[in-house]
Amino acid sequence: MMRRVFVSDAVSTGQTVWVGGDDGHHLSRVLRVNTGESLSVAASNGVFAAIVKAVTKEAVAVTIGEPQSRHDAQTAIYVIQALAKGDKIDTVIQKGTEVGVAGFVLVQTMRSVVQLAPNKVEQRTARWQKVATEAASQSQRDKVPRVMYYNSLDAIGGWLAAQANLRLLVLDEQEQTIGLKQLLNEPEIRTEQRQSYAIAVGPEGGWADAERQAWRRLGATCITLGPRILRTETAGLVAASAILYECDELGG
Amino acid sequence: MMRRVFVSDAVSTGQTVWVGGDDGHHLSRVLRVNTGESLSVAASNGVFAAIVKAVTKEAVAVTIGEPQSRHDAQTAIYVIQALAKGDKIDTVIQKGTEVGVAGFVLVQTMRSVVQLAPNKVEQRTARWQKVATEAASQSQRDKVPRVMYYNSLDAIGGWLAAQANLRLLVLDEQEQTIGLKQLLNEPEIRTEQRQSYAIAVGPEGGWADAERQAWRRLGATCITLGPRILRTETAGLVAASAILYECDELGG
Repeated sequence: MMRRVFVSDAVSTGQTVWVGGDDGHHLSRVLRVNTGESLSVAASNGVFAAIVKAVTKEAVAVTIGEPQSRHDAQTAIYVIQALAKGDKIDTVIQKGTEVGVAGFVLVQTMRSVVQLAPNKVEQRTARWQKVATEAASQSQRDKVPRVMYYNSLDAIGGWLAAQANLRLLVLDEQEQTIGLKQLLNEPEIRTEQRQSYAIAVGPEGGWADAERQAWRRLGATCITLGPRILRTETAGLVAASAILYECDELGG
Repeated sequence: MMRRVFVSDAVSTGQTVWVGGDDGHHLSRVLRVNTGESLSVAASNGVFAAIVKAVTKEAVAVTIGEPQSRHDAQTAIYVIQALAKGDKIDTVIQKGTEVGVAGFVLVQTMRSVVQLAPNKVEQRTARWQKVATEAASQSQRDKVPRVMYYNSLDAIGGWLAAQANLRLLVLDEQEQTIGLKQLLNEPEIRTEQRQSYAIAVGPEGGWADAERQAWRRLGATCITLGPRILRTETAGLVAASAILYECDELGG
């Protein structure tokens, strides 16, 4: 399995590019790549084979080879995850990235046992983003999922409104009737091209009623994943796996 | 959410039973239940509401009430998991139990980075079984999934042969063609009642060729979950979620 590095620019076959910054440091000092080694470079315009041409302490020069097949799902799935203890959020981001989640929206909820102080948001988001980057490299994703943070459900409204064709699904243990399969097989969904989904997962203590109302105002459908109680860090992965399976994105 | 206790015997409505042993200790000393508290009792013949009638240091008397609806999936899914570092196996068992896996078969593989010494098997299996029991209680399962251990793939043969109607699926990164969806929609599978599945998940380094041959001798089908590389502790949960979804076991 070739090691994968993400670069933010577009690249083209035959070009030699210097990878610097965090990625260059990671390649040079952590992965300790050597001249002549084969890599795969995930750039803004696709994924390419590459050969390491030179290594310095903080940067690596690679010559871009042929384009490679893409790995990311065409169905965009976002996980909106209620804030929980740190290692649970790391699990959500790491495992979700592996299975193919397009992005993560962390949100402070009324019953979150953890509070994120405003002056910690930037640092914490950067750490979560790093978890996503490492998992994206390991799982051979084409793009690193973006990690966002909002301090309330209502604050997510702007982000939701900017997404085209997004279906918002809220996992809710109070919902007994509407299941994921039933919903994904509605005729209007089956005929739409490239539907994308956001799955909202509540905190350990569940959603507050005011939050259920907020979700409804945002156009959400509350659904059940069945009678077994999934932990907050498990539910999003299970729902994302089921949707990707339904959309032929788990190997068909 | 009522707290759930597992008892190995059959119970009936109106009966008062003493719960002793590990379960009684857990109820009395860890969960610290009180007289008058409502519980749910998962017995060999079903799940029942119950009321705590008396509490001693090591046992709890409960009066059995009305039967409750069952939560376990009707489709039995077993995860055959290559031995990996301890916390990964705990993750596999905890999350798999939540989603509804019927049992776990841990197996020593050629590329497992961890070896389980013969004199440690009993102790380790007991610890894994405890992880399953705690997760079964938390996720409101009807039965505690059983955890088994075998020291090689060939040793699994006897267990496999004893399962009726079991389809053995091996996740293999070398398989490019046969996907889970395609396989689950084969006409002969769609028409069978109560098919059960075993999903085999390799170690971090993948299956050795000799193991691929052993699986084929055991009647397995190798499948892919698509182009993204799932970690060993993630793959079984993703596959189990997809199968349960396909079989209408995730809320329908």
